[in-house]
Amino acid sequence: MKVIVLKENLNTGINIVARASGKNLTLPILNNILISAEKNFLNLSATDLELGIKYWILTKIEKEGKITVPSKVFSGLINFLPNEKLTLESKNQTLYISSENHKTQIKGQTAEEFPIIPKIEDKNSIELNCAQFCKGLSQVVDFSVLNQARPELSGVYLSFQKNKLQLAATDSFRLAEKNLYLEKNNQKPAVHTQEISFILPQKTAREIINILSDKKGKLRLYYSSNQVLFEYLMEETSHPQIEIVSRLIEGDYPDYQGIIPQKYQTQVVLSKSDLLNQIKAASIFSGKSNEVKIKVDFKREGVEIISQNPEYGENRSFLKGVLDYDEGAVKEMEVSFNYRFLVDGLLNIPTSKVVFGLNGEEGPAVLKPESDQDYIYVVMPIKSS
Amino acid sequence: MKVIVLKENLNTGINIVARASGKNLTLPILNNILISAEKNFLNLSATDLELGIKYWILTKIEKEGKITVPSKVFSGLINFLPNEKLTLESKNQTLYISSENHKTQIKGQTAEEFPIIPKIEDKNSIELNCAQFCKGLSQVVDFSVLNQARPELSGVYLSFQKNKLQLAATDSFRLAEKNLYLEKNNQKPAVHTQEISFILPQKTAREIINILSDKKGKLRLYYSSNQVLFEYLMEETSHPQIEIVSRLIEGDYPDYQGIIPQKYQTQVVLSKSDLLNQIKAASIFSGKSNEVKIKVDFKREGVEIISQNPEYGENRSFLKGVLDYDEGAVKEMEVSFNYRFLVDGLLNIPTSKVVFGLNGEEGPAVLKPESDQDYIYVVMPIKSS
Repeated sequence: MKVIVLKENLNTGINIVARASGKNLTLPILNNILISAEKNFLNLSATDLELGIKYWILTKIEKEGKITVPSKVFSGLINFLPNEKLTLESKNQTLYISSENHKTQIKGQTAEEFPIIPKIEDKNSIELNCAQFCKGLSQVVDFSVLNQARPELSGVYLSFQKNKLQLAATDSFRLAEKNLYLEKNNQKPAVHTQEISFILPQKTAREIINILSDKKGKLRLYYSSNQVLFEYLMEETSHPQIEIVSRLIEGDYPDYQGIIPQKYQTQVVLSKSDLLNQIKAASIFSGKSNEVKIKVDFKREGVEIISQNPEYGENRSFLKGVLDYDEGAVKEMEVSFNYRFLVDGLLNIPTSKVVFGLNGEEGPAVLKPESDQDYIYVVMPIKSS
Repeated sequence: MKVIVLKENLNTGINIVARASGKNLTLPILNNILISAEKNFLNLSATDLELGIKYWILTKIEKEGKITVPSKVFSGLINFLPNEKLTLESKNQTLYISSENHKTQIKGQTAEEFPIIPKIEDKNSIELNCAQFCKGLSQVVDFSVLNQARPELSGVYLSFQKNKLQLAATDSFRLAEKNLYLEKNNQKPAVHTQEISFILPQKTAREIINILSDKKGKLRLYYSSNQVLFEYLMEETSHPQIEIVSRLIEGDYPDYQGIIPQKYQTQVVLSKSDLLNQIKAASIFSGKSNEVKIKVDFKREGVEIISQNPEYGENRSFLKGVLDYDEGAVKEMEVSFNYRFLVDGLLNIPTSKVVFGLNGEEGPAVLKPESDQDYIYVVMPIKSS
């Protein structure tokens, strides 16, 4: 193999694929990056066997071939080199990197030992808006949880219905759901003719967000029964630039729709940042239970945020809001929450006003943006003992 | 006690004094902040018995008095309150904090149990330029080291000679020295009539940098045989705003002057950022010894940076520079360094060009700014075994 490539382009690619390579003691080749040169492209790939990432660079290939080198050494080195043309050459399981004032030899392993990252038939594919999809994922991904007893909670649930994509995640204490809308064209087969759903591992979802959030344009998703591939194309050539392949989590996702309350006994519209700060101030006094109380104040029209702790003292603050309630709503309502769950939910709401929907002391409460019906965060109160 | 104070001002003060309060299990009152109101000032103080910090706020005192409250609870709470006027009131060992929509009670302890932060007679004092002093301290402080066998190395050495202040720190592998110049006036007694020196604990030096770096104007230092006080005044009233009191480290500082080479067999002037990046690139291959080699290249005029490791491979880069050398300088010179020591030194050099002075394979080497004679960093090579 002999390739000439700009350090900047190589560095971008390494930083992306290195996310899939880790510290694997039983199979050390997984700590490597596979470098291969074919036709006009330099390809980098890495995998941890659950997640695989590939990256292509259009560049000058003088001789085709491939080699693998340790990801940490390769990425560490390239990062610190000056931004100039580098020559990459493989000989005797060693990668030679050179530029005008610089010569490096990295000891590698033959590419034959590197596991093959599986391909997916391109029969079934869906076109997504890349930035919207990443933003939606980021609003739910934190609420999935690694759970050995219930592995299906360890991922984000994607459900395609007609021209809608529903993203959901829950750890059984709280739940977030986001709706995205798909374009009608370019779906094979047309997604509105069949319902498709699967569970994407949390790690894959996080890496998609990290790698693709700042990309414009389209992202194409290919799926089979146990795997999924996300493909992002180069603007100039419509050759793939990035591919992320992931296994899917087996099992049935819980039927969570029944948990999402369709209406609220009491609803308050509040300033998001004020609510966030006052919950944080209250949290100082919440002690080990993390408990803060939300008391709806019908007279003053707003909520009181209360916390107390026999050791430290107590804290009460009032926040004015716009109240809306059922005819028969209980006028003395005080609901307890784990403050962390409220903070996590608020941090995923992008608007300045938040709708806080309450259903008594034990019913599920809701946080959602004031002006966006497509995101909802459901949180269970702490039951009074 | 009853005080009315702006949250913003209170918050600034708490964040400063809280640096001296910690997690003390044997003497829990040290985890508290002492709040006292006297005349027109609200005073906050905290101490860990080695370091004490006081902060004054000019504000409306309705009733004098004092109380102590846990630093963590107090600072956590105030940080999240909206920026408005707060009323602080003490009753029955409880601090009541209130504003229009907010009420807090923090359980405290009586002020009588709080240790007295010692005062220093103001007979001996020196006036410093606050920003210059902090910047100088920051260029040496990292090279002092907590060392039980040699406690004198655990601090920064301050030596006042005529109108010069010399700051030095060493961990016995490397040494940094910075010279600052004092104004002739306002020194009591005039510093040029006597030499004064002491060892300031590393923690105190770090807190001075953290707290005072962005302050303009003068800083006054009061000293006695075992303590030192740094006083920063309010601009408007010339009442103290911040006082930092610290014990000094006992013992004699090593006579380090002899170690600083006065001339170099070979001197190269190099780009600081290029040298830094190339040392970092080399470090990837340095292995556990952290060893990188610097080879002076007389023909190409510059240095070659070399590192190798049987496991990973090797790295060589060349960096052009301006060479200057003794008549009799050895033309084949290759000196080994711990790359971390070179990186640490370079990071404290603010200029774009650095002078790298070498004295053979075993003699002390020097890094210093090209255009500043007042800072020097000395580093010992790794001796060839």
